[in-house]
Amino acid sequence: MTLLLTNDEVERLVTMRECLDVMERAYAELGQGVGVSRTVSQIFSPTAHAQDAVYALKSMDGVVPFLGVAAIRLTSEILTWPKDASGRAKKVRIGAAANGRFIGLVMLFSTTTGEPLAIFPDGIVQRLRVGATTGLAAKYLARADATEVAMLGCGHQAHAQILAIAEVRKVRRVRCYSPNAEKRVAFAWDMAERTGIAIEASPSPQQAVRGADMVLCATNSFSPVCLADWIEPGVHVSSIARRARAENVRQGRCAGRALHRRTAGHDRCEPRRHPGRGNRAMRRAVRAALAERQLPNLYDLVLGRAQGRTAPQQVSCFLNYVGLGYQFAAVGAIVHRNAHAQGIGRELPTDWFTEDVNP
Amino acid sequence: MTLLLTNDEVERLVTMRECLDVMERAYAELGQGVGVSRTVSQIFSPTAHAQDAVYALKSMDGVVPFLGVAAIRLTSEILTWPKDASGRAKKVRIGAAANGRFIGLVMLFSTTTGEPLAIFPDGIVQRLRVGATTGLAAKYLARADATEVAMLGCGHQAHAQILAIAEVRKVRRVRCYSPNAEKRVAFAWDMAERTGIAIEASPSPQQAVRGADMVLCATNSFSPVCLADWIEPGVHVSSIARRARAENVRQGRCAGRALHRRTAGHDRCEPRRHPGRGNRAMRRAVRAALAERQLPNLYDLVLGRAQGRTAPQQVSCFLNYVGLGYQFAAVGAIVHRNAHAQGIGRELPTDWFTEDVNP
Repeated sequence: MTLLLTNDEVERLVTMRECLDVMERAYAELGQGVGVSRTVSQIFSPTAHAQDAVYALKSMDGVVPFLGVAAIRLTSEILTWPKDASGRAKKVRIGAAANGRFIGLVMLFSTTTGEPLAIFPDGIVQRLRVGATTGLAAKYLARADATEVAMLGCGHQAHAQILAIAEVRKVRRVRCYSPNAEKRVAFAWDMAERTGIAIEASPSPQQAVRGADMVLCATNSFSPVCLADWIEPGVHVSSIARRARAENVRQGRCAGRALHRRTAGHDRCEPRRHPGRGNRAMRRAVRAALAERQLPNLYDLVLGRAQGRTAPQQVSCFLNYVGLGYQFAAVGAIVHRNAHAQGIGRELPTDWFTEDVNP
Repeated sequence: MTLLLTNDEVERLVTMRECLDVMERAYAELGQGVGVSRTVSQIFSPTAHAQDAVYALKSMDGVVPFLGVAAIRLTSEILTWPKDASGRAKKVRIGAAANGRFIGLVMLFSTTTGEPLAIFPDGIVQRLRVGATTGLAAKYLARADATEVAMLGCGHQAHAQILAIAEVRKVRRVRCYSPNAEKRVAFAWDMAERTGIAIEASPSPQQAVRGADMVLCATNSFSPVCLADWIEPGVHVSSIARRARAENVRQGRCAGRALHRRTAGHDRCEPRRHPGRGNRAMRRAVRAALAERQLPNLYDLVLGRAQGRTAPQQVSCFLNYVGLGYQFAAVGAIVHRNAHAQGIGRELPTDWFTEDVNP
């Protein structure tokens, strides 16, 4: 049977602790050249949805041999880049499917039989794997006595970032910031209740960052959300978005930096005559990828092949913005294992997704 | 509703004529830089299925804007390379899924809503798109008065090759060859009945090729199946497998050659310590890709930007061995359109494959 799961089911099926544990072992296997990942590819094209929108088909895949699982994650999206009140552009996904829904799917396969094991939406797993990666890097890079967190961004990703960081350090306080005052207050209340950690909303990013030992950026803003001068000695900074990362990261003023995976394999397909921002974004991505090839990978830290922080006053930093199909395979395998053990999910006949024709 | 189709349904839903027509328009759009394709990527990894087997996850995708359709084709396979009686290696796919089945899937998406339109196995579409591509190239490269065909290989792909070639030239006779005598005789009987063309089984590849105007290679043999000296002036040669192509193609003795798409974008991911043939195969593929970058693309012929045959006595040749996700989008769109119009297929709730979480 092929299991069809919902986001709600995925959320109930796996803990952040399980995600961190499986990712740590999976990263070691990746660094040893046993695990394999294909980084993201994207196709952009015009869409009949709207003149200023773009259709994007994105996919990434990976195989985690010790779990016997392969995964492909794919998204089929309508994207726009509207400007906010301050004139800053932000990527916005349009829920253009029936009932205002989005399309992001993870498909898991057995490497023993090839069979599709499970199909589920990517929404929850996406946050779990990003959060777990941030947590794993902080485990290896942040000061052992780090306790105060600045959370820049109060969206969906921020939830998982806090859950993950709380698994690897004794977090005593979080200050969160979003330009939307209501959102940051609601986030602080919600997360305080869920985690038991003291969480307060800060009126500015600078106030959130002041005194923090760990600064986590999780926003889709196109502008940097944290300036270099704000970062005090000994702080660990991480960001899940290239543009949103702290300015001092851009300026190379960090020790113990790690990319979770170099972007060199990044494969981006675009129509040559695509109108709009695609080509500029691609050139930027290529330039950034070349510069970042110097950085060690997260798996180098996990395997002890690269040194992270060597003194408490160093600033460390983690660039967590290249999605790996591999991460979906690792976290997805745990989701599937637990769903199978607990009898959760809709069982579809595997024959629906297999064939007797040898192509 | 998302349509789930079977191979049998796909086969009934679309004709080779429809495939050729949609591919011709789609290739023009690809050459104009409007259509987009990501060529194949593959991950190989060890499998618990057997020591001498390899697990492979393969994917390719593409968007055909004039159809408003995106497609991803993915295969999840257990592969082996056993040697036949003569010591020649052949790639063999193991049906390791329940009931001895294989896993190859095409997923179609709307570029207007992002929604999954259809999911179906790749077996039939795979042959249709390869056959249609061979036919399209022959339309632009073979002599207008070509009537005799040599079909080297009598497997599943060969069926579609003959259907396609018969759509673009007045085929009067086909001589087919397979090293398996029973297979070639059965193929000749079956195809003669299906097409009304005179088809005979030849006892050797050389006899099949003698006197032919068009030589179609469709085998998964690792060795060349057709030697340069056999090819007479004026012949059009095409091959769907790199290794099986005629020797004179390898030696560059052809006019009007066309690759259906350069292989430069080919993206192959392998574990660094993969045991066995993977790395050798990759190096060969890279060398071949570099050499073939000189050749025009099929879309250059369709758009009249490259010249094919300029004299009847020239040998022309078509290398049809880089699968494009784009082809699956083009042919798949017709399958979906016809299925929808005729009310064929199992309707699954689209909400099963969409989500309310904005990842």
